[in-house]
Amino acid sequence: MIDVCLLGTGAMMPLPGRWLSSLVVRTGPHSVVFDCGEGTQIALRALGWGLRSIDAICISHFHADHVSGLAGMLLMLANADRTEPVTLFGPPGLRAVVEGQRRIAPFLPFELICEELAPGAEFRIADWYGSCAAGVHHVPCLAYRLDLPRRPAFLPERAKALGLPVELWGPLQHGTPVEWGGRVVRPEEVLGPPRRGISIAYVTDTRPVPSIGALVAGVDLLVGEGTFGDPAEQARAVETGHMTFAEAAELAKKARVRRLWLTHFSPAMPRPLEHAAEAQRRFPNVTIGRDGLCTTLSYEDGP
Amino acid sequence: MIDVCLLGTGAMMPLPGRWLSSLVVRTGPHSVVFDCGEGTQIALRALGWGLRSIDAICISHFHADHVSGLAGMLLMLANADRTEPVTLFGPPGLRAVVEGQRRIAPFLPFELICEELAPGAEFRIADWYGSCAAGVHHVPCLAYRLDLPRRPAFLPERAKALGLPVELWGPLQHGTPVEWGGRVVRPEEVLGPPRRGISIAYVTDTRPVPSIGALVAGVDLLVGEGTFGDPAEQARAVETGHMTFAEAAELAKKARVRRLWLTHFSPAMPRPLEHAAEAQRRFPNVTIGRDGLCTTLSYEDGP
Repeated sequence: MIDVCLLGTGAMMPLPGRWLSSLVVRTGPHSVVFDCGEGTQIALRALGWGLRSIDAICISHFHADHVSGLAGMLLMLANADRTEPVTLFGPPGLRAVVEGQRRIAPFLPFELICEELAPGAEFRIADWYGSCAAGVHHVPCLAYRLDLPRRPAFLPERAKALGLPVELWGPLQHGTPVEWGGRVVRPEEVLGPPRRGISIAYVTDTRPVPSIGALVAGVDLLVGEGTFGDPAEQARAVETGHMTFAEAAELAKKARVRRLWLTHFSPAMPRPLEHAAEAQRRFPNVTIGRDGLCTTLSYEDGP
Repeated sequence: MIDVCLLGTGAMMPLPGRWLSSLVVRTGPHSVVFDCGEGTQIALRALGWGLRSIDAICISHFHADHVSGLAGMLLMLANADRTEPVTLFGPPGLRAVVEGQRRIAPFLPFELICEELAPGAEFRIADWYGSCAAGVHHVPCLAYRLDLPRRPAFLPERAKALGLPVELWGPLQHGTPVEWGGRVVRPEEVLGPPRRGISIAYVTDTRPVPSIGALVAGVDLLVGEGTFGDPAEQARAVETGHMTFAEAAELAKKARVRRLWLTHFSPAMPRPLEHAAEAQRRFPNVTIGRDGLCTTLSYEDGP
């Protein structure tokens, strides 16, 4: 199960009622924040999910509206008496940006690990498998995907048929072979077929290029930018390295994602809902994001 | 005339309904912002005084809650199509902090001038005369004062008595001697006695030391920190380099300021008004600050 919350949906500058684009995802005691513009710490604290669970912050790129809240965020974690390490992920250049930001936040009671990711890199955060792809923007930019795998079901009737004592079931459930009856019993002998996990992608400040489509293929939830709602802004989307609602919906459709949330709305678009039809007629399972929009993604056949 | 607005009254972290401590003062088409933590740009835009009037930003010190909004503020000015230079004032170290912040705001359409001020330094911003003094905090910190001088009254009856033609009145009004009747006429001959101007001081993140008292002596409005309201927090105020309400009120009283606004409230103090009496019984003309508190300071006998 993954809890997801859109902390903010704004582009460029925070507005009354619209924080800068940021997403938090949580599973059990672990959470990850995507992007951290000015004010993200406020939205995150208002959400009330607890601050000590944040394992990592993934930065898409270094335009200020995606990273200017980093010093405040780190100090908020410090004030919450965090001592466990925090990992920052981002494109190459991350360390220099963080060093610059930390000139006003030099003392932290936890280790801060900076991982500069090349497009295509894979990484781990707690139980999540992370991957990323290069966006097409005016500066290096990463789109992210997290996969929470699901173990195959344990089939006790098979374990019983093999005469396995219950104390050997645990290792097999977790994928470890055991010795029993003078031979090695492999996990596959007592486990069901592979099961679909849960996946989520965060894509902002990019054109809808094929590498992004490949990254987000089949995710349960794509949180994707729709900077411009009005199709008349198409040329401007190309020029500024963004997407229209229609383009984001086409991306979602081609990549066969299950659900799309639009975010990262231009400050010149006060009512993004007015343009919902532009997306809906291309990809029906779309939600026009709003600050504080939350959901829970469950495994297909229950927890 | 000076318009004054308290943009935020919080210390350490922005809270719902309480932005980080920041003050803006305006006279005619010129304004100055004091401190610029996360969210200050939002409060400033909500105020609606216009963004292109900002000549300078004075930073007290480099703790994040006083400067973390700088990148966002500069980009907001850029988005408002500002092209006139902006000057930043702050303690030594300002340039390094600004360089760090600008790694996420490298392109600005205006010149950014950084003035590192030694305690006691004097400076000019438009018609204001600025001065500063060292606070006692855990890092170098400056308290600021702005004085808007007032020209002496022009006395037309004296000008007439000297037979001066009207076209020579202007230079004399502005302090420039003129030649008339075969001699030099000095401005003092047609001007009244000196007149009190308007003065304001911004003092935060410091103990109430004598140098601060000297800086703020007699100002019309002292905007001063009262991080702690409860007198039981006195030891903590000393330890953290801050003031209690009582100490700020004593400072105002000793310095014979005309009015005191308290600000920079600890996040642990949700209702600063509960402690108002601590200040009022020492200095009656005190206001417990709140976000958006505004006033206009006029010359004593009208504009």
